[in-house]
Amino acid sequence: MNSENFLAGERLVNAAYVRQGWQGRRAHELRVRTLLEQGKCPEEGWDESTIELFLHELAIMDSNNFLGNCGVGEREGRVASQIVARRHYRLIHGIGRSGDIAAVQPKAAGSSLLNKLTNSVVLDILKLAGVQATSSCFVVPMATGMSLTLCFLTLRHRRPKARYILWPRIDQKSCFKSMVTAGFEPVVIENVLEGDELRTDLQAVEAKILDLGPEHVLCVHSTTSCFAPRIEELAEDVRQYDVPHIVNNAYGVQSSKCHGARRGRIDAFVQSLDKNFMVPVGGAVIAGFSDAFIQEISKMYPGRASSSPSLDVLITLLSLGTKGYRQLLRERKEMFSYLSMEVKKLAENYNERLLDTPHNPISLAMSLRELDERNPEAVTQLGSMLFTRQVSGARVVSLGTLQTVSGYTFKGFMAHADQYLCSYLNAASAIGIKKEDVEMFLKRLGKCLKALRRGKDQQDGPLLPNVDMDADMEKCKIGEGDDPKTLFAA
Amino acid sequence: MNSENFLAGERLVNAAYVRQGWQGRRAHELRVRTLLEQGKCPEEGWDESTIELFLHELAIMDSNNFLGNCGVGEREGRVASQIVARRHYRLIHGIGRSGDIAAVQPKAAGSSLLNKLTNSVVLDILKLAGVQATSSCFVVPMATGMSLTLCFLTLRHRRPKARYILWPRIDQKSCFKSMVTAGFEPVVIENVLEGDELRTDLQAVEAKILDLGPEHVLCVHSTTSCFAPRIEELAEDVRQYDVPHIVNNAYGVQSSKCHGARRGRIDAFVQSLDKNFMVPVGGAVIAGFSDAFIQEISKMYPGRASSSPSLDVLITLLSLGTKGYRQLLRERKEMFSYLSMEVKKLAENYNERLLDTPHNPISLAMSLRELDERNPEAVTQLGSMLFTRQVSGARVVSLGTLQTVSGYTFKGFMAHADQYLCSYLNAASAIGIKKEDVEMFLKRLGKCLKALRRGKDQQDGPLLPNVDMDADMEKCKIGEGDDPKTLFAA
Amino acid sequence: MNSENFLAGERLVNAAYVRQGWQGRRAHELRVRTLLEQGKCPEEGWDESTIELFLHELAIMDSNNFLGNCGVGEREGRVASQIVARRHYRLIHGIGRSGDIAAVQPKAAGSSLLNKLTNSVVLDILKLAGVQATSSCFVVPMATGMSLTLCFLTLRHRRPKARYILWPRIDQKSCFKSMVTAGFEPVVIENVLEGDELRTDLQAVEAKILDLGPEHVLCVHSTTSCFAPRIEELAEDVRQYDVPHIVNNAYGVQSSKCHGARRGRIDAFVQSLDKNFMVPVGGAVIAGFSDAFIQEISKMYPGRASSSPSLDVLITLLSLGTKGYRQLLRERKEMFSYLSMEVKKLAENYNERLLDTPHNPISLAMSLRELDERNPEAVTQLGSMLFTRQVSGARVVSLGTLQTVSGYTFKGFMAHADQYLCSYLNAASAIGIKKEDVEMFLKRLGKCLKALRRGKDQQDGPLLPNVDMDADMEKCKIGEGDDPKTLFAA
Amino acid sequence: MNSENFLAGERLVNAAYVRQGWQGRRAHELRVRTLLEQGKCPEEGWDESTIELFLHELAIMDSNNFLGNCGVGEREGRVASQIVARRHYRLIHGIGRSGDIAAVQPKAAGSSLLNKLTNSVVLDILKLAGVQATSSCFVVPMATGMSLTLCFLTLRHRRPKARYILWPRIDQKSCFKSMVTAGFEPVVIENVLEGDELRTDLQAVEAKILDLGPEHVLCVHSTTSCFAPRIEELAEDVRQYDVPHIVNNAYGVQSSKCHGARRGRIDAFVQSLDKNFMVPVGGAVIAGFSDAFIQEISKMYPGRASSSPSLDVLITLLSLGTKGYRQLLRERKEMFSYLSMEVKKLAENYNERLLDTPHNPISLAMSLRELDERNPEAVTQLGSMLFTRQVSGARVVSLGTLQTVSGYTFKGFMAHADQYLCSYLNAASAIGIKKEDVEMFLKRLGKCLKALRRGKDQQDGPLLPNVDMDADMEKCKIGEGDDPKTLFAA
Repeated sequence: MNSENFLAGERLVNAAYVRQGWQGRRAHELRVRTLLEQGKCPEEGWDESTIELFLHELAIMDSNNFLGNCGVGEREGRVASQIVARRHYRLIHGIGRSGDIAAVQPKAAGSSLLNKLTNSVVLDILKLAGVQATSSCFVVPMATGMSLTLCFLTLRHRRPKARYILWPRIDQKSCFKSMVTAGFEPVVIENVLEGDELRTDLQAVEAKILDLGPEHVLCVHSTTSCFAPRIEELAEDVRQYDVPHIVNNAYGVQSSKCHGARRGRIDAFVQSLDKNFMVPVGGAVIAGFSDAFIQEISKMYPGRASSSPSLDVLITLLSLGTKGYRQLLRERKEMFSYLSMEVKKLAENYNERLLDTPHNPISLAMSLRELDERNPEAVTQLGSMLFTRQVSGARVVSLGTLQTVSGYTFKGFMAHADQYLCSYLNAASAIGIKKEDVEMFLKRLGKCLKALRRGKDQQDGPLLPNVDMDADMEKCKIGEGDDPKTLFAA
Repeated sequence: MNSENFLAGERLVNAAYVRQGWQGRRAHELRVRTLLEQGKCPEEGWDESTIELFLHELAIMDSNNFLGNCGVGEREGRVASQIVARRHYRLIHGIGRSGDIAAVQPKAAGSSLLNKLTNSVVLDILKLAGVQATSSCFVVPMATGMSLTLCFLTLRHRRPKARYILWPRIDQKSCFKSMVTAGFEPVVIENVLEGDELRTDLQAVEAKILDLGPEHVLCVHSTTSCFAPRIEELAEDVRQYDVPHIVNNAYGVQSSKCHGARRGRIDAFVQSLDKNFMVPVGGAVIAGFSDAFIQEISKMYPGRASSSPSLDVLITLLSLGTKGYRQLLRERKEMFSYLSMEVKKLAENYNERLLDTPHNPISLAMSLRELDERNPEAVTQLGSMLFTRQVSGARVVSLGTLQTVSGYTFKGFMAHADQYLCSYLNAASAIGIKKEDVEMFLKRLGKCLKALRRGKDQQDGPLLPNVDMDADMEKCKIGEGDDPKTLFAA
Repeated sequence: MNSENFLAGERLVNAAYVRQGWQGRRAHELRVRTLLEQGKCPEEGWDESTIELFLHELAIMDSNNFLGNCGVGEREGRVASQIVARRHYRLIHGIGRSGDIAAVQPKAAGSSLLNKLTNSVVLDILKLAGVQATSSCFVVPMATGMSLTLCFLTLRHRRPKARYILWPRIDQKSCFKSMVTAGFEPVVIENVLEGDELRTDLQAVEAKILDLGPEHVLCVHSTTSCFAPRIEELAEDVRQYDVPHIVNNAYGVQSSKCHGARRGRIDAFVQSLDKNFMVPVGGAVIAGFSDAFIQEISKMYPGRASSSPSLDVLITLLSLGTKGYRQLLRERKEMFSYLSMEVKKLAENYNERLLDTPHNPISLAMSLRELDERNPEAVTQLGSMLFTRQVSGARVVSLGTLQTVSGYTFKGFMAHADQYLCSYLNAASAIGIKKEDVEMFLKRLGKCLKALRRGKDQQDGPLLPNVDMDADMEKCKIGEGDDPKTLFAA
Repeated sequence: MNSENFLAGERLVNAAYVRQGWQGRRAHELRVRTLLEQGKCPEEGWDESTIELFLHELAIMDSNNFLGNCGVGEREGRVASQIVARRHYRLIHGIGRSGDIAAVQPKAAGSSLLNKLTNSVVLDILKLAGVQATSSCFVVPMATGMSLTLCFLTLRHRRPKARYILWPRIDQKSCFKSMVTAGFEPVVIENVLEGDELRTDLQAVEAKILDLGPEHVLCVHSTTSCFAPRIEELAEDVRQYDVPHIVNNAYGVQSSKCHGARRGRIDAFVQSLDKNFMVPVGGAVIAGFSDAFIQEISKMYPGRASSSPSLDVLITLLSLGTKGYRQLLRERKEMFSYLSMEVKKLAENYNERLLDTPHNPISLAMSLRELDERNPEAVTQLGSMLFTRQVSGARVVSLGTLQTVSGYTFKGFMAHADQYLCSYLNAASAIGIKKEDVEMFLKRLGKCLKALRRGKDQQDGPLLPNVDMDADMEKCKIGEGDDPKTLFAA
């Protein structure tokens, strides 16, 4: 509807009403204009109507939606299924060009705008969420791990002699594999225990750099979502040896404590889209403080890429607005306090305790020391019981689990240390968590602990289809299906 | 996206590409402009993308979608469920005002445009499909029967003395009830048999008008979808007595033979939306040759009405274009020929015949004389067998069924005559029919007839879940569920 | 996915996980089962996922979605546009049969279930919202006015001598037209003024019944949404004269004060779907205390009808749950108090007052006496100013407006009385209203009143595209488009 | 709807009809069961209704859609925007686990099924389309180039000494970059000219292997979509030197001539999803003949990945069925013949010729020798003119273009050879092409060539908004925007 169309409309419907309608339209256009001009996340979230209209508008700028287009190339944005066309708002051409994932496409002005805007809006949010010095970022439709691999592959061209990546231990497979996949040898730096908390061993990192020779070290690869990562001190350390520093900031955007360094060196930090922006799994943001290096990474991706994660994150941020996103961060924090307090109480009732990990603002843990002592099998059984009771995300960590990843054997896997103090149960307050999640978790956990203490667990009959779940599992039972072995290889 | 937005876009993406995108947009706008200026169905159908964009644009012209709107009235277009909002494209205010279903609403310029355009596009199609003299029409979200009632109620104000409606018999309940509901006494005019064909008894109509006195006759209420309706002759007849004439043109738009008169009198003709335009059940078009009378009817509807049927028909006609609609009419006609030919062959194999009804271009019938003579129960059983074999729409008409509708007892109900020649099976080639419909029907009908001839039908076991349907029912069985009584009161 | 499918799934994916998935499915099925068995609105609202799955399930029970169906009837539920098919969840066959809008259809088990369930769930809500004695109701896809017409047409068959409908005045066109359309003569009963409040004149109703003769009175037609309707007393009155009583309960469900009678006579009460259930315009609920009479009405509708309003209201109630609906009622009430209090304050600032109408729980009014005295044009101008400032629903009522509806001239139209005390501004707190609606309304009203007091309104330039709306209209101007005549014929 | 729900339904609606509905449901379930049991693409495509129902069913098996789920992990499948949730059918957990992109997820049985089924159905199609020996494949949400990188990274672990990748030249950037990104040194093998056709230089490949030493060669990296790739001969060659062979089969599935080898060695072949299956850009299929190696690659991807490309390709193949997919392949082939024939004619009119490239079944080329000779600028101008006339995909290849990609300078870039015979225009008949694409292309190309011959191109005014596009560009003009430099850096 342009002005000519409105004029034509006035011949059918009272001009005063059409004019009112036109004013209504103007307000939507203004929102879009502000977005295009400023490239920032709007303060107030947009309603679905504006978002969908905007996406439709972007789509008709792509050649596959031109009414008079004729395509005789190999890649014309044709779609066989209308279901597929609709769910992508007919934005089919993906993002980037063969040379650069951040580049614009001649055939697809709309998709190109989508790509640019998404990166710009995400940059705005990264700054707002705490890393104000971030100068550049881009969304990449790959897992955090694969995105880290891309960063390492980029660094390889700068450091042809490097063979090692120094990695303060964090027990997550993809983290470790990201280095192996890139073709480097991970050098694991074990954490040191301070009270209940595992902390990065800065001395060990430094010693290892000197030992291997800085030029043979591709980079230090640290992780913010660990117990107590000491990113800032690491960043200062690596700076003096001129060793690059790549940060796995997986969950970091959502927590203001997890951010990078100012005075040290961080070449790039990578965060998961789903863990920070409540979108489906599959994308990451690669960000940094030097436009040149970030662009170098974006030019490393060979080929065009899916615009689906970009689309998701743009829709999400437009619908939340900075106001909505801040609200989510605030609620997460509140729920973390609430969860800590309540787990503490519950733990004390069972002669366990809330582990004291003040540097971890997202996850917490409750010891399972006594449970483990009474019956080592009960620990894994607890995990299994929670799973069948539809508690997701709570992980039971037993002492001494061995796990081999890409040929490297970890002792005490999942505990981030060869020998942690005790078995424990892990829970997190991540973005989007609701009070009822916490409440249900506590209720179900309480019942499971009670059942385990009674020790009559094994006699119970099979778990019925879990239809009492909503009735708060009054008859919380341990069922045949509770097989920890099949269920808990995370 | 207005021109300012495109300019802003050029700062993010190469200007040449954005300009190309803008040209793409222009083409969509032009389509919309042509529609708004001409109010006609486009020749070429629109793609889904243009249609949805257009509906979005209409929606943001309605006050419920104004970003700055504040509502303190009783009816503000608020919607509790987003599912509901989306499925109506956020067009919530319905059509019309309390005074007139065709009127525009101050609060809803977009919905008002939708209403005007729909009526205009439908008028275009009515003309194109054959009734070129139509001067006015409107879509009403009511069944054909209720729409006829509205016409009768409108005529009441013009003819205060009238008590009767003359109605050449057509055995369809809602047809009859439309008169009773309006508070008039239907006077049934029995059809006369000419060959196999039932034809309107013009003499009887005329005699009845004179008998009752023209001023006591509200109108003649004829139906085009009957065997041989003689609408044109009726129209000339009523004209000379100054008696109004309302035509139930239920299926008529789809068949070029079914149209109204030129030289006679037709005050209004009413057609079903679903039967002619392949949209969901629930709407009708009231049309006529005098703007004043049609407007009088539209002003009779007290209150605002659902825009859902209007939306459906507009979307449908825009997506088909006149080209697509003509194509559907052509295919229907071809399938009618094919169906006739094949039913004729099949009938002859079973010593029955295709009834000779040259004035009915949509439905045809095959006699079930021999079947009836051998076993009268077999006739209803055939209907039941077809139903359980997922043949829908084929109706078996037994001789001599009695049916009371609103206190009036019809003999030979469904046959449109007290005593038709024989029992028969009825099938139709309606708009949207596919060749595979006809083929599957013939195959299944053949098998049912064969089974009935073998006479071993009753011994068979229960009908299994009908999973062999796609395998062309090789094991076509007659099951326990084949109870004609419960299934075939149409 | 039935149990065989789950078993097949276990061959692809770990059985324990598939079993977990099956339990997840069971919970959705249980919800559906409870709904089917009890026919009541669930306490907790359903999420979109359950609702859409349920609608899909209903749809595949309709013959148009049978994979092996072949259709050779005139009405096979074929849909030309996939947009249309989708937006109706492929439920195409509408509701009811030619004989009865509440009847089930052989071809469409799913649509029939939808129809039955909707009526049952709505009945549950009507009872819950206060009219506990309601025994029967059905959703009809027609405006409240047209639904009232249907009730009157039904009564005609019971009362063949009746010509009049007694109607305590309420100034809404469709209300009045509903009687005229049905072919009856409305007898207007003027209201009496008690303080600021207009109340039904019970003596006048009684006198008129006696005067015309009860057998000539089709019914009394009262309205709950008027200032002070006295429905209960009316209901007792009509009972003694054996005169039917039809209640227009347009906005009534949302307000617990507006309900019908217990000891008196109410034959049917009709409420708008959109005004009570936050769905699009176009449907009504006809309810009553006698199953027989309600069924009689449902059998009056000639033809199948649109299922679109039923679908909307079912989706809405399932998504809200009784909890959500009650919450909406509660919020509406709170907002009414807030609105009253604030309008009172504002009125006093401008030497006007909040009219004292304790029997109206939805609408309130602020006098415009002084404004009118200073400048009679300012009153209509105020209405126009509010319209262009995107305040919708606030109505300005001038004294002495004449309006002719269907040949009957009303004096003081909109004020429900020939001569009300003063001009006034009307605002309502209807279901779904938000605090920000009230706040924005008060701000904008305040500015308009200020501008009018300053008297410099006419000199201002044209209203710019209303882009400052969100900035709370700091530069609130009166524009050229503010033409009260074209804008405010409600 | 399980059997209990159907029983409950029978209390509301006639049991015979509900049973019919249940049979309708059974047919959908059977389709799903066949899919789950056989893991093959169905012969007949599924309708949208079955597909969407199936996706809904999968979704409710994922823990984020459990009604009683409580999540206290970092990744709980929460989605902030309902638009996003819907467009992914609430399948949020992506595919794979940290250890393996093809692994199942405990939290997400539905998404895991989706992943397994997609890979299984795609494998079925790969076999059907010609590579019958394929034993394993998986969909990966990365560009073809990045997927090739992943293959190279996997091989690195097998061949620690390797530094080189031998690459018969094909001028596409991402192809080349895939090797550089993986950290290897591409060794470009120039093609040899046979007639008009460029063919892989087998001798050169062999010589280079020997020259570098087989153990230093990571693999040979060949491409099927080149002029005449000789994949089979290459495969036999590499086998004898025990050098791996990775095939970029970008467009290959759609063309039966482009398939891999039987007697030789191919370790993996990678194809683009969008180019072969008409889905949005962003995914690839990695396939091979050894389960072990393909699994090794799938275990190389560190992290969970987006399920969006898998979802797209599954929806697409289910909706097409093998029948529909075969039909698309057939139409593509027919259009190739038609395009060849017509380009030949057009070329001859302009004293040019269709280049003779019998081994390329998708792309063809028309010489621009004479045009180039008369005016070298005209060649690039032709490309620009076609772009502004909304011809997409036709590429003009000038002689002697220099292009540097990742530090390597190509002479004659885009022509796949340092010095090809002549400039040319390239066009392709790719899957999904329509006859009208070819017709419009020929018309527009003809007009552009004519305009260039007339030589009056430069005098024309600016190109108006391209509204005449549908009128076949009667006034085909060359505009100011026709700047080849900005537009044609492919």
